[in-house]
Amino acid sequence: MTHNIAILGASGYTGAELIRLISGHPGMRIVALGGERKAGMAIAEVFPHLRHLDLPALCTIDQIDFDDVDLCFCALPHKTSQEVIRGLPAGLKIVDLSADFRLRDPEAYRQWYGNPHGAVEMQAEAVYGLTEFYRAQIAGARLVAGTGCNAATGQFALRPLIASGVIDLDDIVLDMKCAVSGAGRALKENLLHAELSEGYNAYAVGGTHRHLGEFDQEFSAIAGRPVRVQFTPHLIPANRGILATVYVRGDAHAVHDTLAQAYRHEPFLRVLPFGETPSSHHVRGSNFCHLGVTGDRIEGRAIVVAVLDNLTKGSSGQALQNANLMLGEPETTGLMMAPLFP
Amino acid sequence: MTHNIAILGASGYTGAELIRLISGHPGMRIVALGGERKAGMAIAEVFPHLRHLDLPALCTIDQIDFDDVDLCFCALPHKTSQEVIRGLPAGLKIVDLSADFRLRDPEAYRQWYGNPHGAVEMQAEAVYGLTEFYRAQIAGARLVAGTGCNAATGQFALRPLIASGVIDLDDIVLDMKCAVSGAGRALKENLLHAELSEGYNAYAVGGTHRHLGEFDQEFSAIAGRPVRVQFTPHLIPANRGILATVYVRGDAHAVHDTLAQAYRHEPFLRVLPFGETPSSHHVRGSNFCHLGVTGDRIEGRAIVVAVLDNLTKGSSGQALQNANLMLGEPETTGLMMAPLFP
Amino acid sequence: MTHNIAILGASGYTGAELIRLISGHPGMRIVALGGERKAGMAIAEVFPHLRHLDLPALCTIDQIDFDDVDLCFCALPHKTSQEVIRGLPAGLKIVDLSADFRLRDPEAYRQWYGNPHGAVEMQAEAVYGLTEFYRAQIAGARLVAGTGCNAATGQFALRPLIASGVIDLDDIVLDMKCAVSGAGRALKENLLHAELSEGYNAYAVGGTHRHLGEFDQEFSAIAGRPVRVQFTPHLIPANRGILATVYVRGDAHAVHDTLAQAYRHEPFLRVLPFGETPSSHHVRGSNFCHLGVTGDRIEGRAIVVAVLDNLTKGSSGQALQNANLMLGEPETTGLMMAPLFP
Amino acid sequence: MTHNIAILGASGYTGAELIRLISGHPGMRIVALGGERKAGMAIAEVFPHLRHLDLPALCTIDQIDFDDVDLCFCALPHKTSQEVIRGLPAGLKIVDLSADFRLRDPEAYRQWYGNPHGAVEMQAEAVYGLTEFYRAQIAGARLVAGTGCNAATGQFALRPLIASGVIDLDDIVLDMKCAVSGAGRALKENLLHAELSEGYNAYAVGGTHRHLGEFDQEFSAIAGRPVRVQFTPHLIPANRGILATVYVRGDAHAVHDTLAQAYRHEPFLRVLPFGETPSSHHVRGSNFCHLGVTGDRIEGRAIVVAVLDNLTKGSSGQALQNANLMLGEPETTGLMMAPLFP
Repeated sequence: MTHNIAILGASGYTGAELIRLISGHPGMRIVALGGERKAGMAIAEVFPHLRHLDLPALCTIDQIDFDDVDLCFCALPHKTSQEVIRGLPAGLKIVDLSADFRLRDPEAYRQWYGNPHGAVEMQAEAVYGLTEFYRAQIAGARLVAGTGCNAATGQFALRPLIASGVIDLDDIVLDMKCAVSGAGRALKENLLHAELSEGYNAYAVGGTHRHLGEFDQEFSAIAGRPVRVQFTPHLIPANRGILATVYVRGDAHAVHDTLAQAYRHEPFLRVLPFGETPSSHHVRGSNFCHLGVTGDRIEGRAIVVAVLDNLTKGSSGQALQNANLMLGEPETTGLMMAPLFP
Repeated sequence: MTHNIAILGASGYTGAELIRLISGHPGMRIVALGGERKAGMAIAEVFPHLRHLDLPALCTIDQIDFDDVDLCFCALPHKTSQEVIRGLPAGLKIVDLSADFRLRDPEAYRQWYGNPHGAVEMQAEAVYGLTEFYRAQIAGARLVAGTGCNAATGQFALRPLIASGVIDLDDIVLDMKCAVSGAGRALKENLLHAELSEGYNAYAVGGTHRHLGEFDQEFSAIAGRPVRVQFTPHLIPANRGILATVYVRGDAHAVHDTLAQAYRHEPFLRVLPFGETPSSHHVRGSNFCHLGVTGDRIEGRAIVVAVLDNLTKGSSGQALQNANLMLGEPETTGLMMAPLFP
Repeated sequence: MTHNIAILGASGYTGAELIRLISGHPGMRIVALGGERKAGMAIAEVFPHLRHLDLPALCTIDQIDFDDVDLCFCALPHKTSQEVIRGLPAGLKIVDLSADFRLRDPEAYRQWYGNPHGAVEMQAEAVYGLTEFYRAQIAGARLVAGTGCNAATGQFALRPLIASGVIDLDDIVLDMKCAVSGAGRALKENLLHAELSEGYNAYAVGGTHRHLGEFDQEFSAIAGRPVRVQFTPHLIPANRGILATVYVRGDAHAVHDTLAQAYRHEPFLRVLPFGETPSSHHVRGSNFCHLGVTGDRIEGRAIVVAVLDNLTKGSSGQALQNANLMLGEPETTGLMMAPLFP
Repeated sequence: MTHNIAILGASGYTGAELIRLISGHPGMRIVALGGERKAGMAIAEVFPHLRHLDLPALCTIDQIDFDDVDLCFCALPHKTSQEVIRGLPAGLKIVDLSADFRLRDPEAYRQWYGNPHGAVEMQAEAVYGLTEFYRAQIAGARLVAGTGCNAATGQFALRPLIASGVIDLDDIVLDMKCAVSGAGRALKENLLHAELSEGYNAYAVGGTHRHLGEFDQEFSAIAGRPVRVQFTPHLIPANRGILATVYVRGDAHAVHDTLAQAYRHEPFLRVLPFGETPSSHHVRGSNFCHLGVTGDRIEGRAIVVAVLDNLTKGSSGQALQNANLMLGEPETTGLMMAPLFP
């Protein structure tokens, strides 16, 4: 059986990544590609790398016949997403890749995003899309909220450690190195090749990055009490990848054992042998997340390094993984491709 | 039915690319990975990006039981390949990715490679592996010789033009821009990131590049008289890709029509609308070749731009395409993945 | 004696490069930095890499007291430049980096730029700024028109060859590889790191690039009859550099001798030993141009490879070289810094 | 007066950077370039970007007449350096860029470098070359030991903070992002463009990097008691640059004020306004170090971000700054060039 798929916001990087992944999925067929500003254009004009695919032209949302759609991916900008989703048919299965439904608490949403939520009633309904930790809810959900790419990386490194109590909850530092596609296809000076290539910098320094809202929500829920981590992202001259260097207090071997045990049956999460740490290059273009753990010369400290591809496991790959669950497909279908190296 | 596959020279980039592609092929199973110097190592040690795959450890060639192998890929260095292949079982199907069996004429081989051929009798038997033009022979071949990556790119741009007589055979200039993985995993100063990044240069200038041997052999055969093209490769600070800018004399629309007509049923060769030209970024990681044609302000001249991924369509993807034919599989199986962009 | 300098258009890349170079010039002092949209901002806000310099804040053009200015660099966009320059004091020495005064013929200007020229009377007065070939006129000029960066590269490779008659004037192909800073600080999708990095492509294919107007004007004047070259630029994933591969018909040794002889006393133009060709990396950040010549396996053909840094020798370095002449300073002052490698 | 300069180890990146810098120094002349394996080669063969300079060919060390040399830079590999320096004339002024004389304590040296020191008597004599903190001793020194590039970056961020007591000495984390030229011109797989470009990774994780020996020595001396920091370097796909993200406990404004006050008269150390942080791109090719400080949402924590160019301020620029002091030249001569951007 083939599921009919619509993608809203198909002209951005996460939209293109969804098309790439779905084109290799045996049980899905794309029936609509929404893109307001580029409506009427063929996909080959918007993304020439997809010209070999037989796809519908981009269209406006109101041109889409949702009766014919089994599941809709929303890869729209933040704030736009909540408005659009509110207007979609009530029974339509939706995987949202924006930030709009990640935070369950309207007040937390307002604090991190600066505006009141426009679809508060759906906030409660939305299931947080970190597949490995919300499988059952996702399988039964109508609306799944994709996680932030940094938020996913940090949680893969930390959730089992917080749950098991092997680390000090009050002394967690996440130093992240993020590739530029995470910023989307936005036309900003600092995203130009001439500005970014050969340069790198911290940004949102001091605890202002919005993905902290997700860390706070999730880690506090796991711990049963408020947990506040320190998180500094850095923009790196590469196109895909997130590498999180996580500094924790705890026994390094216990940290390693906890992660290895937690993920021993996970198809996409791979814990390296103790003492080894991964490279972002080794997961590029794939849905895998590699994790490594080492001790430090200072006793009682451990370092977890986690890498994933922000566009795949950090966004569109995760979205497809969730869609598989929602549609009753095997979770890994269309997602087992090997990384592209070099 | 699943075919058992061996890969010799599995620790280089084309070997890794073969493993990546075959891991997504439903009808093939890797049963042996040869790598003399790294024998005994797990694939995760040699290529950490493949750690999720359940693969045999690297071994020496004489540890391989070829009775169990349906087809063997040889991704060994030039010269080594002919010695090794000579020693393989006589009935074994082989796809060779080296330069050793590309030239049919022992004298031409000696001229371009500087040494007498070590398996002259097999030279005659080998089928030149440019799939789209040697399908029937490849399907029945025991030994297929993969083409040079530059040679493939240039031939996709030029073969139909030479065959149809729409261009002047004595005035063809190929200016190629080649990504660095084409040089393999060799430890050379000019391949270091610090030397190559932010820099680019011509090399093998003046008609000394060995892929000219293939152009001479193939183009002369098509034309029925000697054809000598001018070819200058350039090393570009990118990891994957070949872009050929081909300057020809002839009517640009006739050139476009000839290519469009020749490739209208080809699954991997895509001719763009007249006047458009492709980017190397749009085929990265895929088996597609995009071709574009424009005229020039100087009447009677045309420019063909062809791009492909040197490791996929230019090497390992082509090899798999040929293997599919040799094993009776559909030609495109395992090769239709979309390019990785960005 | 110190000359007072103004820079209009200081917030673009050529403006920044002018500031960098002048900051190391012992005989110049920047007294005004024009930047309409960023007027009021400190240079450290616009270009943090210049924060160590004691410079005036950006201002609007009408805030500048030109009585106090000895020479003005105009690094404004095309078309804007002619309007602004027309309004500057009649006696002010000006080096214009835009395309507005490169073409002497109003009709040629209209053809290549699509609009009638707004300061036709100044077109005739402007001296073409290719220093090595217009020294005397530049030294006495009031208005010097900086050349296109591609135009400079191609002319360094070809002018002496055209003048001496050692090559066929009707069969010249320039294949250029251009770094991205040549496109300026413009916010365009194809200049984003995510789009350009790992990708490269031809553009303005077929003889539509505006720098052809300069080639036509200059080469025809040298030859005393119309000369039309074929020129295809390519965008390369690097920040600085132009590499021109020039295909000519003629004796390669005669070509080499002609260039070597022509440039034997030039401080910035370096002809390599016969058979060697240069890398763009070897001139980065400098005012040097390296040229190499080889023959081809096809008799009677030669290849000239020329490299320079588009922002330095191709633009702001050339401008400073010209300003030195106009102000009576030694031509090389402030310009002899070694390239940055790696 | 012109000082005669010799450079040993001229064929590596720090050697090339010394030549670049000295070529712009009005009071220095290079009289000898040592390079054992490349002896006899012209500099244009080893570093084509320096071909415009009139320099002696490379030679072996015993071909150098040190009577004619005022100061010798040693850019030799670790361990080689101590053997060579021991054999140089007793009165010769030396700036060593290797790690051999950075640690004063023979036992610490043995611990971090794995072998007993070969010139213990000179270890005591050598002055640690962090110019801004050892000016007086350097001016009078015969042998100055250049610092590690990471060590310099971290110390610029931390020394005033440790000295003033505004931060907790037991909770300091340095997360560093290092460009690849810091690894030198070594032929290693992970330094190849194909491996590094588009990828990044942590290395020497867990407190095993040798620059920790310098941190321990210097920070403990300042504090008057043992200080052990946590330090994790990361390899970034860029050629030049180090960015240190330093996590400390203390009042962020006090941290900022302490750094701003400490460096208010320093020509090369620039403290940004509170809340701003620098990019590695903004110091590339220069001797500047930019430092920024922010607070964190978690009270009592501050983040210091420091950037410098590892080959300039982190190595050869520092060496020249020290040589200026040793020769009685103004400290900044030849070092005030602006960074190269883009």
